Amino acid sequence: MRVLGVDPGLTRCGIGVVDSLPARRAELVAVGVLQSPPQDSVDLRLLRISERLDVWLDEHMPDVVAVERVFAQHNVGTVMGTAQVAGLAMVAAARRGVPVALHTPSEVKAAVTGSGRAGKEQVQRMVASILGLAEPPRPADAADALALAICHLWRPAGALQGGERNQLTPAQRAWAAAEHAARRGVG
Amino acid sequence: MRVLGVDPGLTRCGIGVVDSLPARRAELVAVGVLQSPPQDSVDLRLLRISERLDVWLDEHMPDVVAVERVFAQHNVGTVMGTAQVAGLAMVAAARRGVPVALHTPSEVKAAVTGSGRAGKEQVQRMVASILGLAEPPRPADAADALALAICHLWRPAGALQGGERNQLTPAQRAWAAAEHAARRGVG
Repeated sequence: MRVLGVDPGLTRCGIGVVDSLPARRAELVAVGVLQSPPQDSVDLRLLRISERLDVWLDEHMPDVVAVERVFAQHNVGTVMGTAQVAGLAMVAAARRGVPVALHTPSEVKAAVTGSGRAGKEQVQRMVASILGLAEPPRPADAADALALAICHLWRPAGALQGGERNQLTPAQRAWAAAEHAARRGVG
Repeated sequence: MRVLGVDPGLTRCGIGVVDSLPARRAELVAVGVLQSPPQDSVDLRLLRISERLDVWLDEHMPDVVAVERVFAQHNVGTVMGTAQVAGLAMVAAARRGVPVALHTPSEVKAAVTGSGRAGKEQVQRMVASILGLAEPPRPADAADALALAICHLWRPAGALQGGERNQLTPAQRAWAAAEHAARRGVG
């Protein structure tokens, strides 16, 4: 399975592609940062990011696009641009019929390091270790996008989110709902 | 000049097209509401709105797209979807080379009614009156989109915003900056 992770941002949008390997290993396919010039107007900046997202999706043809879930409580100064870029990534995936999964930052940290409260550096070191890289990918946005992709590969079985739910048959959906209710009951 | 106004929203996105006429009059061209089913996943909902925005832009070929400026302080429960739909409208315009203008709700109220604190009903009545309609367009999202378009047509001369600034030549931009500085000086 190939996952394309997106750490959304208007000035810097991290993007990374990871393939799953047998025995819970993962391989780096590509990683980068999409940028837009802060002196341009928002519409032109969003267009630029959107066009670059299209190129990455067409080039790497992921099975899933994993996007960081953006909350209104994020940094007020940047949250609008972040939310808008996340939206563009979702639409770019949906337009190609690729399922979308949203993961929170603490889900990502927990999946990669075992702790939902891990620091940024710890996450970056673990990303490097998991992918067999000599050092953490730079810049941090790129490492975060890879962490999102790894989080999606290693998420708990049955944990389906966002767009992915829509890919299920009615029977699978009922089963997932029952599982979810059961988990809530015992948790 | 033809302006397409967008009152962004994920469940209901108001959209309206207005042409300017001589002597500060305006004519309704089209108005509607783009909807997406709340039971669908966000990626599919955004895709649906995005595709409908494309249809409206291709059909009506506006000179400017006016979008409500979304703030992080908006309703926390809906602000992410609202911001994302605003982003899609901006990208749809930018992809066609159509300038984008962002207007705040109080700018819209002031342009249409003369008061930045006007109530929703007052705005809707004025929209009907300006466009020569027997009654306010329904639903409210549709009326708000028309108010945005009228606001853009009737904005103070020289008040350039958002993407529109990028359409200027360097000389025009310097002139606009000087005007802006002068207005601040006397205001």
